Amino acid sequence: MPGEFEYIAWLRSRTPADPRVLIGPGDDCAAIAPPSRPLLVTTDMLMDGTDFILTEVGPRRVGRKAMSANLSDIAAMAGVPTAVVVSVALPRDGRDLAAELYFGLRDVADAFGVAIVGGDTNSWDGKLVISVTALGEATARGPVTRSRAQPDDWLFVTGPLGGSILGHHLDFTPRVREALLLHEAVDLHAMIDISDGLAADLNHICEESHCGAVLTANAIPIADAARQLSHTSGKSPLQHALGDGEDFELAFAVSAEDGAKLLRTPPVPGLTKIGECVASGLWLEEDGQRKPLAPTGWVHQLG
Amino acid sequence: MPGEFEYIAWLRSRTPADPRVLIGPGDDCAAIAPPSRPLLVTTDMLMDGTDFILTEVGPRRVGRKAMSANLSDIAAMAGVPTAVVVSVALPRDGRDLAAELYFGLRDVADAFGVAIVGGDTNSWDGKLVISVTALGEATARGPVTRSRAQPDDWLFVTGPLGGSILGHHLDFTPRVREALLLHEAVDLHAMIDISDGLAADLNHICEESHCGAVLTANAIPIADAARQLSHTSGKSPLQHALGDGEDFELAFAVSAEDGAKLLRTPPVPGLTKIGECVASGLWLEEDGQRKPLAPTGWVHQLG
Repeated sequence: MPGEFEYIAWLRSRTPADPRVLIGPGDDCAAIAPPSRPLLVTTDMLMDGTDFILTEVGPRRVGRKAMSANLSDIAAMAGVPTAVVVSVALPRDGRDLAAELYFGLRDVADAFGVAIVGGDTNSWDGKLVISVTALGEATARGPVTRSRAQPDDWLFVTGPLGGSILGHHLDFTPRVREALLLHEAVDLHAMIDISDGLAADLNHICEESHCGAVLTANAIPIADAARQLSHTSGKSPLQHALGDGEDFELAFAVSAEDGAKLLRTPPVPGLTKIGECVASGLWLEEDGQRKPLAPTGWVHQLG
Repeated sequence: MPGEFEYIAWLRSRTPADPRVLIGPGDDCAAIAPPSRPLLVTTDMLMDGTDFILTEVGPRRVGRKAMSANLSDIAAMAGVPTAVVVSVALPRDGRDLAAELYFGLRDVADAFGVAIVGGDTNSWDGKLVISVTALGEATARGPVTRSRAQPDDWLFVTGPLGGSILGHHLDFTPRVREALLLHEAVDLHAMIDISDGLAADLNHICEESHCGAVLTANAIPIADAARQLSHTSGKSPLQHALGDGEDFELAFAVSAEDGAKLLRTPPVPGLTKIGECVASGLWLEEDGQRKPLAPTGWVHQLG
């Protein structure tokens, strides 16, 4: 990546030196002090017209989203994010855009003590594409996977869901701190960040853990945006909460004992018990009836 | 990166398990055993129409190039590549393309014992974009930077240069093994992989090392492709060797003593001494005359 992400080079004198970064932007690779625990790696690419509309939201919010989406994946494993590299394909004449994009990346990176250690800046005739790769470290308790949920576990989310398209998908805070506090407080059997939608992401946990889940309809915390959207979408607020993506809250499973402990003395605000794990299937319990729930969030009406 | 790079998931049962990979594709992050030495990170993004013409070269060669270009950056620091993540924006209906792209990535990854640990697969209305982030480890001798060249050092390259546009830029072998053997044999003061062009990349070394360089015109190894291209390009083969990019050979500086040692008992084939470091400036020595050499490869004719 020689000579690239020039705006990083241009700006790096303004950013505090990070002792973990042995060699920063300006060489062929960045070099980082070796972590003492398992290294976490994740990557997310965002494209104009798919993940954001550049002309509507502006490059700074794009930069924030690109950084936050990656840190959210580190959070889902209860890791500590440490460093990122960023590659971009800029539309031609995108110099100002590049700087704003960088400031957006920096906003979030600074908030979480993450070093931007390098990147690759390109320009082309196409639309803006940005790809961030984030590195992190597991804590002493190890990374949290999706695979240890079991029947009778309690299921939680860290905040209200649905309607993120109205703005939250750009401006969310990745739940890095929440994940670390939860990981300290209890034994997290499985965790995921809600990017595909609550039903879909719970289904990922169920698949990896070889179990099922039943959600309690009236327990699911619904975002104001989901209510607002339901006025025009033809869907109920609950359907938005179940099916919309990019909430970037955490969904996780813990033992009933640990679940009760979380309700008594929540280590983070916004925790809600939304259901329990069962032997198999994905279900929604509503008005005393258990109905099959599709990973898309669609509820099969019975009888 | 949940659920993505589906073709990796689809293919992972066919690829040998890597003991360094603690958690592979299919979770929010990959988890890798912590390296014992400084971690190297680099990223390169390639776009259809800029770095390759997809309809002309096909996806498999694109995959190879994307992997090789990143490993070349690890080679430039004399590191051992270990793992990569890959994010792609596929043109719609790009399923077959994705598989071929993956096979191309795998071709090179397998040749260098590199694990593909995760990624992010997207599709959109634009052209193919692929971004690879490679991780590596420094050896016990530490990473080689661009910054320790000094006057009287000898300059070498690992192979012939110029004309890579005729095909070499897609089909090169990243000089990972060569870099490691050289790093064992001598004290590499500065090294870079030739991606921007010999003159430009030597200029990067000179800038970082605060010195200059003089190249010997008739010592520079010229690729057959540079000769071939010169028949129609209006440039000389030497100009192609100096100015063309993407040779992906290594250029490096060592002490005169180490340089003589390399000539006596070369640890790798193809080594050529191309010049020496001086106090300042970038120069080409031709027919007994020293002429200023621009980082573009353009030679200022004197008198």
